[in-house]
Amino acid sequence: MTRTAFFISDGTGITAESLGRSLLAQFSNVEIAMITKPYVDTLDKARELLKVIEATAARDGHRPLIIDTIVDQGIRDVIRQAPGFKADIFSTFLEPLEQELNTHSSYSVGRTHSIGSEDVYMDRIHSVHFALDNDDGARTHQYDQADIILVGVSRCGKTPTSLYLALQFGIRAANYPLTEDDQDEDGVLKLPKSLAPHRHKLFGLTIDPRRLAAIRHERRPNSRYSSMDQCMQEVEQAESLYRTMNIPSIDTTRFSVEEISTRMIAETGLARRFSPR
Amino acid sequence: MTRTAFFISDGTGITAESLGRSLLAQFSNVEIAMITKPYVDTLDKARELLKVIEATAARDGHRPLIIDTIVDQGIRDVIRQAPGFKADIFSTFLEPLEQELNTHSSYSVGRTHSIGSEDVYMDRIHSVHFALDNDDGARTHQYDQADIILVGVSRCGKTPTSLYLALQFGIRAANYPLTEDDQDEDGVLKLPKSLAPHRHKLFGLTIDPRRLAAIRHERRPNSRYSSMDQCMQEVEQAESLYRTMNIPSIDTTRFSVEEISTRMIAETGLARRFSPR
Repeated sequence: MTRTAFFISDGTGITAESLGRSLLAQFSNVEIAMITKPYVDTLDKARELLKVIEATAARDGHRPLIIDTIVDQGIRDVIRQAPGFKADIFSTFLEPLEQELNTHSSYSVGRTHSIGSEDVYMDRIHSVHFALDNDDGARTHQYDQADIILVGVSRCGKTPTSLYLALQFGIRAANYPLTEDDQDEDGVLKLPKSLAPHRHKLFGLTIDPRRLAAIRHERRPNSRYSSMDQCMQEVEQAESLYRTMNIPSIDTTRFSVEEISTRMIAETGLARRFSPR
Repeated sequence: MTRTAFFISDGTGITAESLGRSLLAQFSNVEIAMITKPYVDTLDKARELLKVIEATAARDGHRPLIIDTIVDQGIRDVIRQAPGFKADIFSTFLEPLEQELNTHSSYSVGRTHSIGSEDVYMDRIHSVHFALDNDDGARTHQYDQADIILVGVSRCGKTPTSLYLALQFGIRAANYPLTEDDQDEDGVLKLPKSLAPHRHKLFGLTIDPRRLAAIRHERRPNSRYSSMDQCMQEVEQAESLYRTMNIPSIDTTRFSVEEISTRMIAETGLARRFSPR
């Protein structure tokens, strides 16, 4: 049995899709095709979508699941005619919220979502470029301006994490790759000198060496860099450095970038410059 | 009147927060302090949070708003005791969904969210590094491997957008800055030669010249680069190129990175390599 789910919005569709996917992830035994329909913001687009939903219902032999965050009343009225199981997120929660807050929502008077402020935009752009300029410890070293400095071996997830922190939360994350260059004469990894004054900002990433080898293999197949021996040795040294220097750390092996980032924020109490929309 | 809202989850809190913010954005006339509490995944943490909510209720003189996506039943039972207006997202929609799909959800049997698959992780990492390697037309030119190529003047939003596309949707976005180097002898901006074979992949960004000048001013104050004259001239030339070459485009001035990205996907029908969690 295949079912189809539509996540419908007159905006980006991000809220409808993220909630819809979270809900439907709880039904792993049902095969569900998921379709996101953002910017359904005219009656014509709504009527066109209505036809698509009707055709889908006929094809599937089951009514589709419809999860929506449509604000505009006229558009809602069109989609309401569609055959489907409907989870209307806004009306489900907004009416009780209006009672609780004893006021009307802009939803109920037909206004749409507000968009991000200029300040947020600037902060975000700045944070993204900060992450890029301070990626891989290479170009610049604005560690004094960093909110957090990610350390870890090459390809353990520093760059995606620092960019996610920048885009989602406006956090200025620098990152520094731990390599053999930072070993002492006995081959023991030491805290790089440039990082020493910023020890309180450090956060370590670690990773299962097998996973690391697989990731590195994609980049440089059959190299020393991607060999199991090399990966094991690098990870061991990094973890030992975190222990001796009391650097908080997280194992990225089984976590998504969202999970790594939000766990890091939860653990450090790092302040966001803004919040996701 | 200040109210406090808690977005609570035993996972990342991303769904609870994103839905909560969307809902509360509809009440612009009420001052609401918003607090996200992710990873409330032990009874101890739940009890601690219960005390925080109780103290907040006493301080505010109003019961807090509690929007949650907690999966674990034991933890739900603790939070249920808190004084508050409760929007329990999962139980509101999951029970009707169980009936509709005629099966039990893993939620109802106490399993937690699944995490991303290895394939998604690899795709994501690859897309982020692709965006970085193909940023600003500088390092490499893997335009044949790109899903989309963003063009536009310097600081119109190409880099954050390409990174967002990579992180959220696994889309491989290259970007190329339109500069005076690409003008012909008459000072007219031409389509760069390296982009010509990939015309069907191009997407133009444009921006209000005043906004552009403000953004550039942050970077290089009082320079020719950030002057109003220069910004106007560059934007005019870029827009004229989009028109003559039939390149689809979007004005980034009043849009968030989420909006730019999702509108671009909606307009081009660009396929995502994976979907956000």
